Amino acid sequence: MIKIAIDAMGGDNAPEKIVQGAIDSLALRENIHIVLVGKEDAVNAELSKYQYDRSRVSVVNATEVIETGEPPVAAIREKKDSSLVVAQKLVRDGEADAFISSGSTGAILVGGQLIVGRIKGIRRTPLAPLIPTTKGASLLIDCGANVDARPEDLVQFARMGSIYMERVCKVKKPRVGIVNIGAEEEKGNALVKETFPLLKACEDINFIGNVESRDIPYGAADVIVTEAFVGNVILKLYEGVGSALISEIKKGMLSNLKGKLGALMVKKNLKGVVKKFDASEYGGAPMLGLKALVVKTHGSATEKEIKNAIMQCVDFVEAKTIDKINAIVS
Amino acid sequence: MIKIAIDAMGGDNAPEKIVQGAIDSLALRENIHIVLVGKEDAVNAELSKYQYDRSRVSVVNATEVIETGEPPVAAIREKKDSSLVVAQKLVRDGEADAFISSGSTGAILVGGQLIVGRIKGIRRTPLAPLIPTTKGASLLIDCGANVDARPEDLVQFARMGSIYMERVCKVKKPRVGIVNIGAEEEKGNALVKETFPLLKACEDINFIGNVESRDIPYGAADVIVTEAFVGNVILKLYEGVGSALISEIKKGMLSNLKGKLGALMVKKNLKGVVKKFDASEYGGAPMLGLKALVVKTHGSATEKEIKNAIMQCVDFVEAKTIDKINAIVS
Repeated sequence: MIKIAIDAMGGDNAPEKIVQGAIDSLALRENIHIVLVGKEDAVNAELSKYQYDRSRVSVVNATEVIETGEPPVAAIREKKDSSLVVAQKLVRDGEADAFISSGSTGAILVGGQLIVGRIKGIRRTPLAPLIPTTKGASLLIDCGANVDARPEDLVQFARMGSIYMERVCKVKKPRVGIVNIGAEEEKGNALVKETFPLLKACEDINFIGNVESRDIPYGAADVIVTEAFVGNVILKLYEGVGSALISEIKKGMLSNLKGKLGALMVKKNLKGVVKKFDASEYGGAPMLGLKALVVKTHGSATEKEIKNAIMQCVDFVEAKTIDKINAIVS
Repeated sequence: MIKIAIDAMGGDNAPEKIVQGAIDSLALRENIHIVLVGKEDAVNAELSKYQYDRSRVSVVNATEVIETGEPPVAAIREKKDSSLVVAQKLVRDGEADAFISSGSTGAILVGGQLIVGRIKGIRRTPLAPLIPTTKGASLLIDCGANVDARPEDLVQFARMGSIYMERVCKVKKPRVGIVNIGAEEEKGNALVKETFPLLKACEDINFIGNVESRDIPYGAADVIVTEAFVGNVILKLYEGVGSALISEIKKGMLSNLKGKLGALMVKKNLKGVVKKFDASEYGGAPMLGLKALVVKTHGSATEKEIKNAIMQCVDFVEAKTIDKINAIVS
């Protein structure tokens, strides 16, 4: 049995959609056991809506909730009985194999480091969301909160990201690229220039060189290595440009009668396009380099994203991904 | 008369579209004089296609052309008779008030510094394209080639960008923001953290604080200040996500008969949306902090972008923008 601890109280749609996603996942694999952590009464009220195998779902009570706006370090230290802290302790103590939350990104990252714990030898623990491209998805590593990384950090990101894409996403020999402002080897800022030769020398990754941000949406690399400040800018701009453009297109189409009729006719086709660019299809963002997998889903995650995140954890555990990451620092 | 020197040989559509754009601009204002710099025969051949006031257009011969792939510094030093170098020298010598090129960005930037020359006291000369938003356009400063800027550089970018938006784009009290990975004042990398209080203390700009990249497409600020590596990533990702999404939408709509019919009906409306997000509507990217205005248009610039870039130069000169920039360092 693969045991997955889920923060039932995190995110905009908790506990309703979180519980629904957990129940939905049970049908997909026989070897999943879900541990829902949160306010017992609220979680049980949601569970009572469903018929499911009770031996595969347990509830662990936690009386507190960490809100999105709270300073992460203080929240983790002070709210010892929060769903996030209690669930991460289950992972630390070996009572669960992985952890999923739609709650505060900062608290998840801090808790990951302080409670779940870093693998010895791993310098930083990057947050690595999958971003949709015209070819599928790429892993953007790092989009976390620790900015101003060093070259050796980026090398570890590249190696962990490559393992993740190979093991969990089943991409053979993942193409690893580093974000730069030109295709030529001599371009870039000090960090990229120092990192480039180190990546080139890595024998365990398929390094393809510089990736310009213009080519990211076209799937220029499977693993896109960058420092967290730039990664954050990329991730959020990706979402921003996409949503602004789609909302303008909708508005534009619906601005007159002819357009409205046309819009009805293309609606189904456009839904397919939007689905292709929907990040929630890929579950949540893994936080790598910890002793167990921690997954951060969107704050707005619905049952589908939670279900996909659970499958992501199962794939991660089944592929013995942690052993492989351990091997790069041993 | 405002004299504008144009590199007639730079870019994918030179000299044909460059000359056409120059001729088109003459009808818009009476006080423009265009100096076309390039291979005399080729330029004259293009000019012979039009009827125009010959007293307002002159041709200066230059026998060489700097290609896009050439290392910029070597190209500027060695190709003394290139259209780019000859035209920039006209600006340096006061024989033209501004310079426009669709050629190599690197060579334009290097030439700007070495030939046109930096204003005394200006530390760096940023490239600041206007990027389209749902509300109009924002100035993204810096997208140039000089990465790893210091806080004092960013402060000058903010002040010059604010002057540009106010004088040339007629935005009253332009809102100046700094690119960051969170809205809170304490967030960011070392550079942003050091720059934030300096910007806050500037009395001559309307500083509105941090801007997250997600909000850039929605017009979160009129002047978006960032270091050139991040600026480059933003600019190119902006273009990449937009073009990838639009091509997927087209493909999606045309994938079956019903969609094709619908596409015909929404075509006109969608053109309006695409036009709104078309950067060439705003002319080219100004390079600021030089003794005169240097404008870099897209390599693929057509007559419309050239015409708009000429109007941009006229507005810049008429608003005495250089005097205003001079004032911040005197």
